Amino acid sequence: MSDPAVLLDLDGTLVDSVFVHVVTWSDALREHGYEVPMWRIHAAIGMGSDRNLLWWLGREMPEADALAASHKRRFLDMAERLLPTNGAHALLDDLAGREVPFVIATSAGTEEREALLAALGREDLPITGADDVESSKPATDLLEEAAKAVKADLDQVTMIGDSPWDAEAADRLGVRMIALRCGGFADDRLLSAGAYEVVDDPLALVGRL
Amino acid sequence: MSDPAVLLDLDGTLVDSVFVHVVTWSDALREHGYEVPMWRIHAAIGMGSDRNLLWWLGREMPEADALAASHKRRFLDMAERLLPTNGAHALLDDLAGREVPFVIATSAGTEEREALLAALGREDLPITGADDVESSKPATDLLEEAAKAVKADLDQVTMIGDSPWDAEAADRLGVRMIALRCGGFADDRLLSAGAYEVVDDPLALVGRL
Repeated sequence: MSDPAVLLDLDGTLVDSVFVHVVTWSDALREHGYEVPMWRIHAAIGMGSDRNLLWWLGREMPEADALAASHKRRFLDMAERLLPTNGAHALLDDLAGREVPFVIATSAGTEEREALLAALGREDLPITGADDVESSKPATDLLEEAAKAVKADLDQVTMIGDSPWDAEAADRLGVRMIALRCGGFADDRLLSAGAYEVVDDPLALVGRL
Repeated sequence: MSDPAVLLDLDGTLVDSVFVHVVTWSDALREHGYEVPMWRIHAAIGMGSDRNLLWWLGREMPEADALAASHKRRFLDMAERLLPTNGAHALLDDLAGREVPFVIATSAGTEEREALLAALGREDLPITGADDVESSKPATDLLEEAAKAVKADLDQVTMIGDSPWDAEAADRLGVRMIALRCGGFADDRLLSAGAYEVVDDPLALVGRL
């Protein structure tokens, strides 16, 4: 049996980015003539790929690449306003200090990932990224690959994320998932998607994982 | 006994503005050195005044005016991206067509109200505003004044809003309140604040009020 290990989502979990994604997706969609209510966009944030997100919002695929490019440009333009979530640094330091194996499991594209890590101000983090896998959340590929990266059996892994899509991916894989409220998702959505527990933010998990 | 009448919140209810408020409050707070998680800001949106909102976020009062001015400037700068919520026009037309007395009850300041009405594209709406009352949501003054404007007994009034603060004000007054999900607030928060029912957006209420 392996040691316990932790998989951490990045976008929305360690960086307070969800509401910025909502506004920039809204702008990108509107640029292409689509008026999508912001609460519907919010509900789709955290899906592993732009294509999944647009599919979920019911948009046609032909424009997916242009929409995703427009969102990315707008998101990077707003990246300087991104801040770490409450306790993100404390949790990372806690895991490192107690030598709990952990890895960031993120499906963010390369440039967005760099902007998120810059907002976090950490360059020393182990990462399993979208480039390492075939399909993204709510598919389980990213989490499986991340678990391999920390050499952990799935039943020894705890996943920390902020969106129902994190919870769904973990649930499919039989991985225990603790959800954070700091992405703005409702407790009942997180729990019904498979979260084991809901806490406010990373600070609430310091010393507990 | 008076005829049934409807009170409509504006910000977040008829205009899809909540997420824009979150981002612009975040920027204003950060400008003054405060890092407040966006999900916490979101939870405060819909309070009737900037002062209430800042108090709820735990900020000191001395800077309230400067913070509110910074938020207002940033919000007005982003006003061109505001859109009506789904079915806002259909609901207004439905109420007018069936001659149901209604009034917009909004605590938005003058400039923000004008920006919201411009986004809605209607200049023909009866309005009870913050200028007409002493205290704002979750205080009941605005709703009481609005009910007077439509000459309705409180037990004949239905209030439509998107935030828990709307629900709380209505509940205090014994007014039936139907909450909309389009502001991004969770069903359980709306219901526990006193909402009678939760529906997606104004479209869901066409023909029903």
